[in-house]
Amino acid sequence: MPDEKINTGLELRSLIKKTGELELSLAKVPVPEPGPDQVVVKVEATPINPSDLGLLLGPADPATMKSTGSGADVKVTAPVPATALPFLAARLDQSLPVGNEGAGTVVKAGSSDAAQALKGKTDSMVGGAMYTQYRLLNARDCQPLPAGTTAADGASWFVNPLTALGMVETMKREGHKALVHTAAASNLGQMLNKICNEDGIGLVNIVRSPEQAKLLKGIGAKHVVDSSAASFKDDLTQALVDTGATIAFDAIGGGKLAAQILSAMEVAINKTAKEYSRYGSSVHKQVYIYGGLNTGPTDLSRSFGMAWSVGRWLLTPFLQKIGREGQVKLRERVVNNLKTTFASHYTRTISLTEALQLPTIAAYAKRATGEKFLIDPSKG
Amino acid sequence: MPDEKINTGLELRSLIKKTGELELSLAKVPVPEPGPDQVVVKVEATPINPSDLGLLLGPADPATMKSTGSGADVKVTAPVPATALPFLAARLDQSLPVGNEGAGTVVKAGSSDAAQALKGKTDSMVGGAMYTQYRLLNARDCQPLPAGTTAADGASWFVNPLTALGMVETMKREGHKALVHTAAASNLGQMLNKICNEDGIGLVNIVRSPEQAKLLKGIGAKHVVDSSAASFKDDLTQALVDTGATIAFDAIGGGKLAAQILSAMEVAINKTAKEYSRYGSSVHKQVYIYGGLNTGPTDLSRSFGMAWSVGRWLLTPFLQKIGREGQVKLRERVVNNLKTTFASHYTRTISLTEALQLPTIAAYAKRATGEKFLIDPSKG
Repeated sequence: MPDEKINTGLELRSLIKKTGELELSLAKVPVPEPGPDQVVVKVEATPINPSDLGLLLGPADPATMKSTGSGADVKVTAPVPATALPFLAARLDQSLPVGNEGAGTVVKAGSSDAAQALKGKTDSMVGGAMYTQYRLLNARDCQPLPAGTTAADGASWFVNPLTALGMVETMKREGHKALVHTAAASNLGQMLNKICNEDGIGLVNIVRSPEQAKLLKGIGAKHVVDSSAASFKDDLTQALVDTGATIAFDAIGGGKLAAQILSAMEVAINKTAKEYSRYGSSVHKQVYIYGGLNTGPTDLSRSFGMAWSVGRWLLTPFLQKIGREGQVKLRERVVNNLKTTFASHYTRTISLTEALQLPTIAAYAKRATGEKFLIDPSKG
Repeated sequence: MPDEKINTGLELRSLIKKTGELELSLAKVPVPEPGPDQVVVKVEATPINPSDLGLLLGPADPATMKSTGSGADVKVTAPVPATALPFLAARLDQSLPVGNEGAGTVVKAGSSDAAQALKGKTDSMVGGAMYTQYRLLNARDCQPLPAGTTAADGASWFVNPLTALGMVETMKREGHKALVHTAAASNLGQMLNKICNEDGIGLVNIVRSPEQAKLLKGIGAKHVVDSSAASFKDDLTQALVDTGATIAFDAIGGGKLAAQILSAMEVAINKTAKEYSRYGSSVHKQVYIYGGLNTGPTDLSRSFGMAWSVGRWLLTPFLQKIGREGQVKLRERVVNNLKTTFASHYTRTISLTEALQLPTIAAYAKRATGEKFLIDPSKG
């Protein structure tokens, strides 16, 4: 089968200028010939994850965005606060591609056996720059999907599934026996419940409404506490006593929630403590912030003993820590369960052009729990 | 030489009752006979460190304290906020002795060679319960002082010196090359400057007034930034560029300082970054809170990249980590330099009875930088 004749494709680009302006556009980029170990994949499904939005929109406020041009010539601009520019120094004046993960069909393949084996197959991909029509990448960054699994099924195979598995793995490696998760009704949170139920691990789900609590209980979550309930503090403490959780993964970031979790952990630990420890318990309590649904300050009222830490958790450094072998094991668990444990649900599928329409940007920039956008670049 | 005849001694006690009342008093306690490997030390000097105040006063407000009785029969009481009681569960209704470290003369010694070798010697001690007239302890928790070094010289041999040395050791073990210290004009901060100058380690001192800056520069500090100056942010960033410091030890705890340090570190790192990293720099930035001069919430505006952590640092877990051998090395460095690198300066020396007078409590509870109290229990 000869390779398809494909010369150029559209690629979404994000640029922040030194002058303090964000510019989103679609570039017409040449489709390169693959090297021996490379393939070109026609991208058919790539999700908009919260982790993509930082690169895509930077600190710009969608409410201030303006749009010119139409179709593939659209250009979206917005001011970037001057105070944020020092933190962006290394990306200024560079037109950057976006999109962590995706799936599609291999349309060109290099000469190596590994590359040729992928020819014509539907594959999941990782490596960035997925908001593009044709993605050149190394064969080892492709994962062929089992028969009957579509590109849409396999688009969100990496970030959420590996984040959920990474939380459980981090919990084990750092010596904790159960974990807490916030914004727990999210796609990721639902996956985490399925994993913990399969693996017999205690999980305390913190949600923000009775509806979210109901949703999680419906999929078999055992410990669900609702931060909007008057009894939240007591409910959380009881769930921590029941599970023994001393590590939390927090998607919210801002506000008092991290401190509330650490305080409740400290109370739960002291409830069963045998002996007074002068600064509070010496059991290490950890909160990892992995998202920023609330971009406001984290407010830590430090009344939670002598052993605690609040830090950033991200997938990439975690994957570096476990190495290629550890990654492959997790990847295989994912692709073999994409329709069950690791299924993602999308509220809208859009084209690249639609991804740059202002009302659409405003919608996905909200990062609302339960809402999830899928881009199909093959639609233009 | 026969052992002195000593039957009882005064011992300062702190009690928090389940009913929510703090009670400070002086107990008359029997002086026990030492076991074979033990000694009894007549305590002549024991400092009031910030780390003692948590156990001594709990969360009680000195302004609400009342006093009854006089002399050794004094009793000080104060209400403890009900919200704090759950965190104190393990100490409630127990009369606890106080005082981390001290020095004095060995007046009774057990039969072992190690104990007999200490007889009549002036020793530094560690192990708690030092606000007492006679302290029974194991010979291995005593450190004989060099000739010409008094109990007052050796009283603060452990907490501050080992904390300062522990910061430098933690910096090295966690892969950083220079460090930041806040409330840097303190006794501890001055020691840290002497250590870093001796060892050739970059140290950024953050102080809160021009007077404190002058004091530190006077003892040879190279990087001093004043948080009360309009140019604080720029000064701090420049000092971080100059030193490459990516770890900070913070005595303040509350407020925005921890976040300001992390932000300045991120800007300093990005100034020299070669390549844009999508969530900010991947260089790990660490703030350890080791004190709480500001007991208000820690306010973290999280604009400092993808690799950061804010956690509690305390001497005891650090010492456990380095083990007995590591500790002995640090201890010996300290006792051989008690009049130079590790010298402490006291603003007042008080008796046990004076330590429970309300104006005195109000004074030491302030934890003012540069002010330091020494208790001499042999004065009654």
